[in-house]
Amino acid sequence: MKHFTIQEVKSWDRFYRGNFINSISGFKSVSLIGTVDQENNPNLAIFSNIVHLGADPALVGFINRPREASPHTLSNIEHTGSYTINHIHEEFLEKAHQTSAKYAKHESEFEKTGLSPLWTDHTKAPFVKESKVRYSMELQEIIPLKQNNTFLVVGAIQDIYVPSVAVQADGYVDLENVGSLASLGIDGYYKTSLLNRYAYAKADKEPTRLEA
Amino acid sequence: MKHFTIQEVKSWDRFYRGNFINSISGFKSVSLIGTVDQENNPNLAIFSNIVHLGADPALVGFINRPREASPHTLSNIEHTGSYTINHIHEEFLEKAHQTSAKYAKHESEFEKTGLSPLWTDHTKAPFVKESKVRYSMELQEIIPLKQNNTFLVVGAIQDIYVPSVAVQADGYVDLENVGSLASLGIDGYYKTSLLNRYAYAKADKEPTRLEA
Repeated sequence: MKHFTIQEVKSWDRFYRGNFINSISGFKSVSLIGTVDQENNPNLAIFSNIVHLGADPALVGFINRPREASPHTLSNIEHTGSYTINHIHEEFLEKAHQTSAKYAKHESEFEKTGLSPLWTDHTKAPFVKESKVRYSMELQEIIPLKQNNTFLVVGAIQDIYVPSVAVQADGYVDLENVGSLASLGIDGYYKTSLLNRYAYAKADKEPTRLEA
Repeated sequence: MKHFTIQEVKSWDRFYRGNFINSISGFKSVSLIGTVDQENNPNLAIFSNIVHLGADPALVGFINRPREASPHTLSNIEHTGSYTINHIHEEFLEKAHQTSAKYAKHESEFEKTGLSPLWTDHTKAPFVKESKVRYSMELQEIIPLKQNNTFLVVGAIQDIYVPSVAVQADGYVDLENVGSLASLGIDGYYKTSLLNRYAYAKADKEPTRLEA
């Protein structure tokens, strides 16, 4: 086991440190976030720091980098209050990763990468047609983090699209079945395989495996 | 593709809705968080909503449920400013899941589940000895989310322990190699397998695979 102090980490080259610190906190929920600006120009960007905040109300948060590093998604959400979150699958992984390139504000990542915008009546922002699990969000609050100028964007889930076959009898969505990917660090993408599901843990009982 | 509106989701039984909404946002970074109270009594709890906030300074955040649902970790961190985050592996997955049971404040989840506390000179809170990737944190800020009384706990990484073999030449930590798990929903745990790593995306280039 190797021990690194934060002083050593600080002394590292920024790319080495970026890879190391980005991966040390574990696998992430990588997804594509779709938005539009005030003139309805679409934007699409890959985000990996997505958290479940609560089921009732159904809230999801994501971390947006500092405004100068990642301005378009954030300003579009500020202006329209609307965005979509779209899972990523192996079939279009390269295109999804390519949305992380710095395109100009007037350039659409849909056009540049070849992913297809899917417009619906009830959501201003476009979905990604190729994605098998997608949901629309209504902005609740943008919380700036003073430590490093990132933002926690808090949103409420509105409409959800998911293949029926993936929804199990107890409501669990089998994302391995639909091939939603996880990510690690800045640039690693992973498939998953279920080890186990467990029953609700009780203080006076041994853990029980659920039928998976 | 099935379409669910938020009105339908709200009408569901709370367990079904909890499973569905907890899994729809994707795979998560599940870890055990170790703390102590003011009398140095250890506490250990499983958390799955962990985000990377930044590499310089090295900041990690996690979401803590409302205080009445999950009081011990939060109040220990408020009192001591110190906590550890420990990855979970297949070898002790049942014990890790069992820490989610509601034990009384005076009961130690280490004792109850059979996981081993590992005390070090430079960190007040205990690590989990069985964990192959662990890091200590210094509290920066606790941000309450007014939408549902959850909290974003922002901390700075202090000391990191990781097997040398997992750290690649560019700093990337190969968590598949050490068997760190991901989670889905409230109770699903997953192994991962690498699909690809990609070079930094550029607006005028096609995506390039890195040697994995």
